[in-house]
Amino acid sequence: MKHVIALNLKTYEESTGEKGIALCRIAEDVSKSTGVPVIVAPQTVFLAQAVSKLSIPVFAQHVDTVKQGANTGCTTWEAVKSIGCKGSLINHSEHRLPFFQIFEAVEKAKQMGLQSLVCTTNAMESKAVSVSSPSLIAVEPPELIGSGISVSTAKPEIVSNTVKAVESVSRVPVLCGAGITTAIDVKKSIELGASGVLLASAFTKAKNPKEKLEELASGVP
Amino acid sequence: MKHVIALNLKTYEESTGEKGIALCRIAEDVSKSTGVPVIVAPQTVFLAQAVSKLSIPVFAQHVDTVKQGANTGCTTWEAVKSIGCKGSLINHSEHRLPFFQIFEAVEKAKQMGLQSLVCTTNAMESKAVSVSSPSLIAVEPPELIGSGISVSTAKPEIVSNTVKAVESVSRVPVLCGAGITTAIDVKKSIELGASGVLLASAFTKAKNPKEKLEELASGVP
Amino acid sequence: MKHVIALNLKTYEESTGEKGIALCRIAEDVSKSTGVPVIVAPQTVFLAQAVSKLSIPVFAQHVDTVKQGANTGCTTWEAVKSIGCKGSLINHSEHRLPFFQIFEAVEKAKQMGLQSLVCTTNAMESKAVSVSSPSLIAVEPPELIGSGISVSTAKPEIVSNTVKAVESVSRVPVLCGAGITTAIDVKKSIELGASGVLLASAFTKAKNPKEKLEELASGVP
Amino acid sequence: MKHVIALNLKTYEESTGEKGIALCRIAEDVSKSTGVPVIVAPQTVFLAQAVSKLSIPVFAQHVDTVKQGANTGCTTWEAVKSIGCKGSLINHSEHRLPFFQIFEAVEKAKQMGLQSLVCTTNAMESKAVSVSSPSLIAVEPPELIGSGISVSTAKPEIVSNTVKAVESVSRVPVLCGAGITTAIDVKKSIELGASGVLLASAFTKAKNPKEKLEELASGVP
Repeated sequence: MKHVIALNLKTYEESTGEKGIALCRIAEDVSKSTGVPVIVAPQTVFLAQAVSKLSIPVFAQHVDTVKQGANTGCTTWEAVKSIGCKGSLINHSEHRLPFFQIFEAVEKAKQMGLQSLVCTTNAMESKAVSVSSPSLIAVEPPELIGSGISVSTAKPEIVSNTVKAVESVSRVPVLCGAGITTAIDVKKSIELGASGVLLASAFTKAKNPKEKLEELASGVP
Repeated sequence: MKHVIALNLKTYEESTGEKGIALCRIAEDVSKSTGVPVIVAPQTVFLAQAVSKLSIPVFAQHVDTVKQGANTGCTTWEAVKSIGCKGSLINHSEHRLPFFQIFEAVEKAKQMGLQSLVCTTNAMESKAVSVSSPSLIAVEPPELIGSGISVSTAKPEIVSNTVKAVESVSRVPVLCGAGITTAIDVKKSIELGASGVLLASAFTKAKNPKEKLEELASGVP
Repeated sequence: MKHVIALNLKTYEESTGEKGIALCRIAEDVSKSTGVPVIVAPQTVFLAQAVSKLSIPVFAQHVDTVKQGANTGCTTWEAVKSIGCKGSLINHSEHRLPFFQIFEAVEKAKQMGLQSLVCTTNAMESKAVSVSSPSLIAVEPPELIGSGISVSTAKPEIVSNTVKAVESVSRVPVLCGAGITTAIDVKKSIELGASGVLLASAFTKAKNPKEKLEELASGVP
Repeated sequence: MKHVIALNLKTYEESTGEKGIALCRIAEDVSKSTGVPVIVAPQTVFLAQAVSKLSIPVFAQHVDTVKQGANTGCTTWEAVKSIGCKGSLINHSEHRLPFFQIFEAVEKAKQMGLQSLVCTTNAMESKAVSVSSPSLIAVEPPELIGSGISVSTAKPEIVSNTVKAVESVSRVPVLCGAGITTAIDVKKSIELGASGVLLASAFTKAKNPKEKLEELASGVP
């Protein structure tokens, strides 16, 4: 697998409405110009529009594990698939799931032919989650999320230990996240064994998101 | 206020993808042909597409009370407003909220110039919610939801008592819901003092949704 | 009703084990020596022991609204009644409930002959909750909880407006809480119309809890 | 390890108040007379009384992962340890936890010198949980809980597959549960590799709980 940059656009003002679509287009442009695979996860409300304009993979930020039927205000796997999403983040630190629902979600994604990117906080959790063989795992120490202090610099052992722990039971690629803001953070993450990075504010809230993403992509070997 | 029919499309297979958009169009067509105001609440993923094709009010089924910012997998009031939604259901029986969040949501909707339709289960709850002056209240005894047994027939006193209780503290119009499936159910609801009805499966899962909605609209005086 | 001091012991180290029971005894001693009614709410684990040693009312900090039956790790109203509790806090800011569960809990307490003290955050919520006629309401602006800045000093209008709003629909006595730490805070609260105060850390974490509670009680006219 | 019978008393009327304490005493008596280790998990409210009267291990049904401090209506590990509990069920099907909280709870239990019995629903989840090395795992297919149809008869492969899956990454003993009601159910469970059983209603709601537990214990080799 090529190293990947996954972009969580969250619900920032900067990712709402036309601004959010503009960020998606930048992600696509930079992915094409640099050759680095980029996954983008816009807000649910803008998913359909994003998918219709992009050729890079668009993920949901969260999908509910409910079945199609009498549920209100939920987002089903069938709905996100119907508009052309390629997968979803699962269990992000801002949207934690009960344990059994993570596994249900991974299984459901497989049945639907969609990809699953499960977020975890450390090596042990990552190893445990890898038992279900999701498409990707992203390890993010919660205390560094949004901190601007990169996990690959501040806690490099979390990245390398997670990669080793996951390799001991599966072949799931491991991304790392939390505080990734520079090309050096990306480079170090990959040197530590990560298959890429997951990030949000460094891109979404950048003064010049295009330049920032180009810089981040330059950290991919 | 004219009597209104509010349609919650839930996450049924019948309301997913193109089928869901088709249901929205039917709602619009019947509203125009009969003159009965119809509100439609599609799945979040299809909101933007629905709004772009309709002139009747489109509501979200649920909006999260989070602020714009570092949240993942949530739907903000700003996002639904940006695409042209006119309001949202709040506290549906399939998406209950902590008490303070209901009031926060009503207040936020007001600030945004959007409408709020708060769901409740009985007269006392409705009276309490009306203190916050939402745009609409819909009372739905949970045991009758999806039952096919109309609240206006099985428990008419819930409708009339709710209308009276709400009138004692506010001027919020009261819809009723749960088991509404025929023109007679609609007619009785309005005779009991309701300002309209909220329904889901009777329309969404009807063999011929257009005929069914025309029938329901014929119950509006 | 006489003015009351309600003490939430929370899950502080200072309220765990023998220390918690000692705090309960102090509450009883000060209530007797000053004549001020005191309600004490120890941790669930220590409720039975507290009740067995005290004659002042002992409340639970939270009761689950589940029925007796196949539930695991819950606390039922039947269980707290069986050991002699006199009531429970409901919807504390650290244990928020869905709206309908607050009303279910108030109703259940009435059926069981127990008292209900419902926590709210402002005047509008308090008015709404008072529709269900709980035994007591305690209004606590969340931003002042644990702040050491008294609601009665920093936001006196919240107390007086809440008292008026509740009086407009019911006769439920209103306590106030958040930042109550001195006799003056208590005195002002009562002057603003409150029927007493709800507090936690000022007592539980005081260097000398007995002196502190005596001081607080001296603020009751 | 000797094979063990773990009894979850849930919040049944039959396990409330003096009846619950009587069930605890029966558990102790049968454990002593048969030599089969029995763990009993009473309701939180009755934990302290149960511990004070028993010499067999008493577990909580659930412990919150919050730290000691400003939390209301929670049960801390420190509180249950302070009264002499030996451990707790974690993630029971009637009290599911976010994934990361399961691991936090297992780790906290270890730090406190307490035992952790984590409930799961299948082999894959059990393997994943065993990565955290809890004291015990109990696999319970949710569809059979309370059914009276024993997992060891209806779905024996779940038991044997779980035992194998867990053995592939750890040495955590596996109990099985769901529908265990007879000595034969217990015997089969152990033949399938289980280290014992977890059960609730078969004991708690038995006409003669003592006879029933003696029967169940007779299934242990």
